[in-house]
Amino acid sequence: MTVRAAVAGASGYAGGEVLRLLLAHPEVEIGAVTGHSSAGRRLGTLQPHLHPLADRELVATSAEALAGHDVVFLALPHGQSAAVAEQLGPDVLVVDCGADFRLKDAADWETFYGSPHAGTWPYGLPELPGARAALQGAKRIAVPGCYPTAVSLALFPAYQAALAEPEAVIVAASGTSGAGKAPKPHLLGSEVMGSMSPYGVGGGHRHTPEMIQNLSAAAGERVGVSFTPTLAPMPRGILATCTAKARPGVDAAAVRAAYEKALADEPFVRLLPEGQWPSTGAVYGSNAAHLQVTLDATAGRIIAISAIDNLTKGTAGGAVQSMNIALGLDETTGLSTIGVAP
Amino acid sequence: MTVRAAVAGASGYAGGEVLRLLLAHPEVEIGAVTGHSSAGRRLGTLQPHLHPLADRELVATSAEALAGHDVVFLALPHGQSAAVAEQLGPDVLVVDCGADFRLKDAADWETFYGSPHAGTWPYGLPELPGARAALQGAKRIAVPGCYPTAVSLALFPAYQAALAEPEAVIVAASGTSGAGKAPKPHLLGSEVMGSMSPYGVGGGHRHTPEMIQNLSAAAGERVGVSFTPTLAPMPRGILATCTAKARPGVDAAAVRAAYEKALADEPFVRLLPEGQWPSTGAVYGSNAAHLQVTLDATAGRIIAISAIDNLTKGTAGGAVQSMNIALGLDETTGLSTIGVAP
Amino acid sequence: MTVRAAVAGASGYAGGEVLRLLLAHPEVEIGAVTGHSSAGRRLGTLQPHLHPLADRELVATSAEALAGHDVVFLALPHGQSAAVAEQLGPDVLVVDCGADFRLKDAADWETFYGSPHAGTWPYGLPELPGARAALQGAKRIAVPGCYPTAVSLALFPAYQAALAEPEAVIVAASGTSGAGKAPKPHLLGSEVMGSMSPYGVGGGHRHTPEMIQNLSAAAGERVGVSFTPTLAPMPRGILATCTAKARPGVDAAAVRAAYEKALADEPFVRLLPEGQWPSTGAVYGSNAAHLQVTLDATAGRIIAISAIDNLTKGTAGGAVQSMNIALGLDETTGLSTIGVAP
Amino acid sequence: MTVRAAVAGASGYAGGEVLRLLLAHPEVEIGAVTGHSSAGRRLGTLQPHLHPLADRELVATSAEALAGHDVVFLALPHGQSAAVAEQLGPDVLVVDCGADFRLKDAADWETFYGSPHAGTWPYGLPELPGARAALQGAKRIAVPGCYPTAVSLALFPAYQAALAEPEAVIVAASGTSGAGKAPKPHLLGSEVMGSMSPYGVGGGHRHTPEMIQNLSAAAGERVGVSFTPTLAPMPRGILATCTAKARPGVDAAAVRAAYEKALADEPFVRLLPEGQWPSTGAVYGSNAAHLQVTLDATAGRIIAISAIDNLTKGTAGGAVQSMNIALGLDETTGLSTIGVAP
Repeated sequence: MTVRAAVAGASGYAGGEVLRLLLAHPEVEIGAVTGHSSAGRRLGTLQPHLHPLADRELVATSAEALAGHDVVFLALPHGQSAAVAEQLGPDVLVVDCGADFRLKDAADWETFYGSPHAGTWPYGLPELPGARAALQGAKRIAVPGCYPTAVSLALFPAYQAALAEPEAVIVAASGTSGAGKAPKPHLLGSEVMGSMSPYGVGGGHRHTPEMIQNLSAAAGERVGVSFTPTLAPMPRGILATCTAKARPGVDAAAVRAAYEKALADEPFVRLLPEGQWPSTGAVYGSNAAHLQVTLDATAGRIIAISAIDNLTKGTAGGAVQSMNIALGLDETTGLSTIGVAP
Repeated sequence: MTVRAAVAGASGYAGGEVLRLLLAHPEVEIGAVTGHSSAGRRLGTLQPHLHPLADRELVATSAEALAGHDVVFLALPHGQSAAVAEQLGPDVLVVDCGADFRLKDAADWETFYGSPHAGTWPYGLPELPGARAALQGAKRIAVPGCYPTAVSLALFPAYQAALAEPEAVIVAASGTSGAGKAPKPHLLGSEVMGSMSPYGVGGGHRHTPEMIQNLSAAAGERVGVSFTPTLAPMPRGILATCTAKARPGVDAAAVRAAYEKALADEPFVRLLPEGQWPSTGAVYGSNAAHLQVTLDATAGRIIAISAIDNLTKGTAGGAVQSMNIALGLDETTGLSTIGVAP
Repeated sequence: MTVRAAVAGASGYAGGEVLRLLLAHPEVEIGAVTGHSSAGRRLGTLQPHLHPLADRELVATSAEALAGHDVVFLALPHGQSAAVAEQLGPDVLVVDCGADFRLKDAADWETFYGSPHAGTWPYGLPELPGARAALQGAKRIAVPGCYPTAVSLALFPAYQAALAEPEAVIVAASGTSGAGKAPKPHLLGSEVMGSMSPYGVGGGHRHTPEMIQNLSAAAGERVGVSFTPTLAPMPRGILATCTAKARPGVDAAAVRAAYEKALADEPFVRLLPEGQWPSTGAVYGSNAAHLQVTLDATAGRIIAISAIDNLTKGTAGGAVQSMNIALGLDETTGLSTIGVAP
Repeated sequence: MTVRAAVAGASGYAGGEVLRLLLAHPEVEIGAVTGHSSAGRRLGTLQPHLHPLADRELVATSAEALAGHDVVFLALPHGQSAAVAEQLGPDVLVVDCGADFRLKDAADWETFYGSPHAGTWPYGLPELPGARAALQGAKRIAVPGCYPTAVSLALFPAYQAALAEPEAVIVAASGTSGAGKAPKPHLLGSEVMGSMSPYGVGGGHRHTPEMIQNLSAAAGERVGVSFTPTLAPMPRGILATCTAKARPGVDAAAVRAAYEKALADEPFVRLLPEGQWPSTGAVYGSNAAHLQVTLDATAGRIIAISAIDNLTKGTAGGAVQSMNIALGLDETTGLSTIGVAP
């Protein structure tokens, strides 16, 4: 099978990562690469790491430019995907790296994004219960947010096995690429190197309702989430420290068993051997998620920690993995679990 | 007043930071600087940033070397302070940057440090209720751990005002200097740059009982703590994200008021204006702690976040601040609240 | 003496660093702090590390705002200083951190800066031959560029002693703060962390004629300079590797002797003991320059390497040092040679 | 073809990178992975990024362990390769990532490495004149040093075309992985983050004679080299700034033409479009070398700058590329020119 794929929003970090992965995908041929303000520029000046595409010129994002592809990846600012997707035929696989179609609850969408809800598409986190089946043959995919990817992988086994009380407390550190490529003073290298800072504190981060949606689905009841994201001095990576009170009677063996069972067949999730903890460095540039879990018996809490690359498993890798499933390819095609380390 | 001060353990990061601050202290004259394996070497090769002391030679740590000083700072590996302190007279002010005399509960000490409990000294976190009074005229001071400093400052106002349930969930990121200068593979620049990783997960970190001790004292009841430390790719700084369930009926105004009241007169703690969140970069090299707090009404949790420099306010700055109080000097003498940024 | 000082351009990195140093200066009282687009904002939101000035409001830069001060520091974009300086009386000490008055040669100015030459002021690098005398009692000071500071300190002793051929090859690495606080894509943390890149290659960097001016003055003949600046993944610091062919017959002892002689009495320049090489980390936040020199006998070249903090000795510290001289204060007043390390 | 490959020294950075690349190589099956002090440990604890090999146990390096492979990669400390290689049969392809067989001049070896010269093997930098032919069918390959790779690629076109005087001045910045995984105080994250420092200054770095060897071969006369390496705060990457005086009459067009001609058919070397300069970030984790060159007409010097990943093109990628040639595979098999960025 050769799949012809277009990437809309190819000048940003998400679009660049989609292209990086597609270049290594044996079944994909890269078609149109589009941009907005970057239209007319060569990709080599904007994404100099994408050596084989250096001479490609970005064209303006439009229905015409995106026509004639089997798959279209959208890496656009939130709120812009629906308009583009509408213009693509129902037989085209549209993979949206934006938030537009992630949430099921329209009210949540409107509260957190401040615009009318565009709808809900099959959710591109295959590891979640039921998600893989929903992706098979799908023509529209909503790629999860990077934080919800890391957090949901870390906690769904505990909720699925009813080990944890429905109130999670999550603190995650993200590399700066998660904040995008639009230049802002607080994202300058001078500001972020040597410094950690929180943002979106107190429940305001847009990824919160997405986490609640995923964990609640796994738990079969509403799970409350206290989520604090922090910006870390590194380009890539999310380390999510996820905790929840253990239900009465839950012991460490039960926790371990639940995670082993839930993750046993997952090609991209590695539950580390007991005693070894994940680091974002080990998954740099890879589609792997590294996970560890323990029970703090004194505090009575389950502590699950995941490490992913926010641009790979957290965005573009999840997108390609889901595309593979939708197209009936082996899920791992073109994707690596090997990090670039040190 | 001119105070003659010695520093034992001057080749490490804590000792080096004590010297850096003492060099800027108008009432202190630096006497002996001692080391163990570094004895005989010039300070300039070990601490090249301490320009004015470059030609000083380290001598071996001993009672003789430390005799004849008004103040002796101990920056030794845990468990070694008691033996040295015993040999110093009762009129010498001994400021221990190690853990040996921080804990009141001997069983806690033995559980976490695996050796007999040496005793308890006045605790060098002046901002805690009652701590300042206990330091006045003291001849022995136990400098708090870096994490307990950040965490206790962030949460004691909530517990003192009975705003929070007695179960705190804390995730903190620390710069690598907190792990010391002894070379270990996981602390190599190649390993830590571009990577975040947790350690001491599940209740095992030695600073946990110290946090429990401080928060419980503020609360008047035992406060359970789930504490997860993480290693961040930066040399200095701690960002502590501290959360606790709000007691019923607590609202945002009450939280703000409690923090404003508790911190109003503190020269080194700055409760930031509402909406502004701390960053470790802003307190780099300074004795300031920057703090913000909010109530996540949906999750029902108080989120208090503090940023300190682990080596300054978290170790050597807290030590000098406490020394100032013990000696009857103005508490701020020789200490700065100005960070080196960007 | 109490000197009342204003800072124009207080929202940027240079202006922020001037304020950081002035806050520690015992003879200075900080008056107006002015900005352009930042006028009306509180300094605490723009420079959160300047704790004691957090509640100060920036006012618009104007002759009125800057009136009534003994010293005015200008930290403005290149080309804007002359207009502001003209409006300040001849008795006000004006210290320009910009480039406008550094070059003596109008043609050089016009070639590199593309605007009419505004004039030449006494040059604020006191360590250069004759510079200190010219600064005494001066009312106008041109603060050197950061790279020319590092490079001139490293090479003037060799040229002054006629040890080197008049062709220098210089490669320097700078922290990102040297590129300023205006957000640009290539200065994003995501771009600079984990990456080194050159810029201004081939003779085009504006600091090149300033280096030529300084080295030629020391040599008594025109010194050609090949200068390549690189951007390093760190917020602060310049490491300048400066090489020149040794003149026939020059040996290592002659080189060492020349440097020792030239730098013997300099309070801020430390020629390191033989065999020890400088690092920018050791001068972080300090006004010190660390220097080492050697002769590569096989290649026949003198290699002199200097490390400074680009914002301190390279900009604001040099400015305050020069101010001290101009005002007749001890040159070291309020300035430290102690780096914040690690 | 399926090639069975062993890696000796698999716990270090070079060995880990060889394994990372071999895992992606379609014609290679990974056999023995050996270590010294790490023998008996699982690879997952030492190289957690090598997900698919996590459960492999390292065995002690020995002739027995390495027997039965088609290719053996040696990633051993300098001086240890000869003894191991001797025990491997003449039909086994031995690819030595160490220095032992790089130099042709025994006296140079003894001067810089202090031990008897073991011999000279075909040199694994296929881009150099004549090198590719020597690698075809070779059974022994000496992988170049990381700095000589970056420097030789940057300057050989100028020397091959007789554009430059035979005295090169080179300053290069390397990420810390180049210094290896053995923990040393100056390589701690606390020391290297936020700091640049030189080392091996004055002609003493062991890669100097290797550069001289390569450039002299291209020039047809002895080329003197002044080489200064610096340690940069990043895990990977070399940025080499290489300059040499242009011969009389050489102009920019001639320089450009020479580089275009010399590099036209190289699959891994990209001469960037004029005006664009390389960054190490763009080649992170890839086997590409990005290059740019210009003529500084005022200074009369050619400035050629290259960026490589020191572990990939600078070590393991060069090794695999050379293996491909030796085995008669397409040179690019299993190797990527796509960097992991940002």
